[in-house]
Formats: sequence, structure tokens, C-alpha cells
Amino acid sequence: MQMQVLKERIERDGRNLGGGILKVDGFINHQVDPLLMDACGQELARRFAGVGASRVLTAEISGIAPALMTAKYLNLPVVYARKSKPVTMPDTVYLTVAPSHTRGHAVELIISPEYLGRGERVLIIDDFLASGATILGLARLTQAAGATLVGIGTLIEKIFEGGRAALAPLGVPIESLVCITSMDNGQIVFAD
Amino acid sequence: MQMQVLKERIERDGRNLGGGILKVDGFINHQVDPLLMDACGQELARRFAGVGASRVLTAEISGIAPALMTAKYLNLPVVYARKSKPVTMPDTVYLTVAPSHTRGHAVELIISPEYLGRGERVLIIDDFLASGATILGLARLTQAAGATLVGIGTLIEKIFEGGRAALAPLGVPIESLVCITSMDNGQIVFAD
Repeated sequence: MQMQVLKERIERDGRNLGGGILKVDGFINHQVDPLLMDACGQELARRFAGVGASRVLTAEISGIAPALMTAKYLNLPVVYARKSKPVTMPDTVYLTVAPSHTRGHAVELIISPEYLGRGERVLIIDDFLASGATILGLARLTQAAGATLVGIGTLIEKIFEGGRAALAPLGVPIESLVCITSMDNGQIVFAD
Repeated sequence: MQMQVLKERIERDGRNLGGGILKVDGFINHQVDPLLMDACGQELARRFAGVGASRVLTAEISGIAPALMTAKYLNLPVVYARKSKPVTMPDTVYLTVAPSHTRGHAVELIISPEYLGRGERVLIIDDFLASGATILGLARLTQAAGATLVGIGTLIEKIFEGGRAALAPLGVPIESLVCITSMDNGQIVFAD
């Protein structure tokens, strides 16, 4: 089920830059609409209310806003994987490498063992589900920590990039608030 | 006036790593407590309710959570300055360079002219007020855009790093939810 308010915002303010790149800098990625993010978080929390999550996990930077709002409604802590190791982090960490096609190079995803441990039940939230590479990286970190993945939620799924199939072997529910089937010829086509 | 719930959380979960570094990775900077951030945002919004802001401005990464929650209560968009230019940003941007003493090198702060323009009234929100270097960078970007700075709010001020004096020439109200006067000898001493 598409989330109507997010779909309408993409129709109004999203831009198809070509090459499968959807610009949502006006309300998600550079300028953020807090009330829209709050509504998206509330809806993701509703969809995952039954999975028994104990942590929300995301990746900096653009996953932070939707993950924070989802975690607020689930009353859970949110952990965001860092892309570089700050001085405040212990020497030994969980680290994986994920290719980033919007950046054109691989990025590191790093989590401190202090905040993700054995026995945790992890709900991954991110802004986009595209190829699934970042989310697969977060799933590997979850596994490395001995924690259990219980669900994956995103704001916008680009169905034509195949991420859902890449994530299917993880065997957890996947929810996207809006699904886009095609961005060919400058269009933004939504799934029914 | 200190915000009691944040002060108590720092006393319980904050760690003095020496060299003036306060580790708050368990509730602000790596793992985030959404309800605490919501309460901090509500309090910052209350303190700046009268300044007539039209935009909240922060810097990625750790400013995003408090700025998002403040903006939610003020019902304003929040813009976070990027540290690298994504492909979705126009070729011509506002860019400044700010020294980062936690990173040990200068970082770029970049804002698209699409989301900060002449006539905007800017409230800067960040997690820490330390030397003030990042906030001064955000103030320069505000000026470059022809916008007006109307206030500066942070969660935690390290008074001994002198940021408030560095920001005083900007001539706007500065509010911090918690003020720390000393971190010598492994202690964390709060202002009264």
C-alpha cells in the first residue's frame, strides 16, 4: 500500500535526474520536512509493530531522519552506522564495506559493539531501497554482532533496481512506503 | 537554565575521554534516544519560539537529530549542510571550510542555493557548542545566502572551549540545554 502523502510529495517536489537518480533533496535528503518524516516514521512503526524489534538500525546520513522518527513511535533506541570511525569509538568495531552507486565507490559501514549485541532484534530503516547494497551491509553487521534481523523498512523503493530480490534471502518482512516501477524517459511511474 | 533530563543522562551515560572529549555515543551521536531528542527539540523550540525563524540549519551528521526535532516543534523545514557534494546538488553551491578538532582536519560545509535564500531567517541548531567553529561556518553560509541569522541553539555547551565568545559578534541569542564548565581530571562539572 502506497503512502499517499509521500507519493504526492514526490510527484510535486521530486525530480528525475536520469540514470535512475531520484532527487528528493527538498524534503528528505538535504532539506528535510520534519512533519512528513514524522508521518512516515509513524506509518513504518505501525507496519512493524508486531516484529518485536529492540533496536532500529540505519546508515548515516540520509537514513537518520526516517529511522529516528520510526524509533520514536516504537520507543526504541536507533543506531546509525558510521561511514568513518570517530575518536569516541572503541578500537575494535564491526565493519563492512558496501558499494554505493550514488557515490561511485565503496563506503565503510561501522558499528560499535557497545550498541549492537547478541540477543538484539534489529529493524533496519533507510530512505531508499534501490539495489539493496547498503541494507545488505547493515544486515551483515547485524549478523556479525550476533543479533537477529526482524524487518526492513524504507521510504521509497525503486523496484527496477532489484533490491527486493537481493534482500529476499534474509527472510524478513520488507516494507516500502512508496514503490516506483520506472524512471525511464524522465518519468516517475508509481506502482498501483 | 540546565535541562535536567539531559544533564542526568550525561551524568549516567556520558564519558570523559580526556582532552576535552565528551563521549555521548550512547544517546546522541551513534546510538540515539529518540524520546530524549524529542524532548530536547521541544525545549529548544520553546526557547526560540519568538525569533521568527523560517528555516532550521544544522550540519551533518550529529546535528541532524536535535535539529529535526526542533524543526518539528517549530513546524519549519530543516536544512543540513553536507560535508561532500552529492550528485543531486547543482554545480554552484554555497561552500565554506571549518576546522574540526574532533576530526583533526578541516571539513567542507556545503548548502544548495535551492534551500537557503535571501529573506530566510535562520535558526542554527547543533549537538555541541565547543570552539564554535562549525557554527561559525554555518553562519558564514547563512550570510553568503543573503539570509538572516536569528539564533543559535545547542544541546551541550563546553564553556571552557570558548565558543560563546567566538559567536558573540554575531549578535543573536545563544541557548544551550546543558553547560559544562570543566572536564579536567576525568570529571564532568556542570554549571549551576
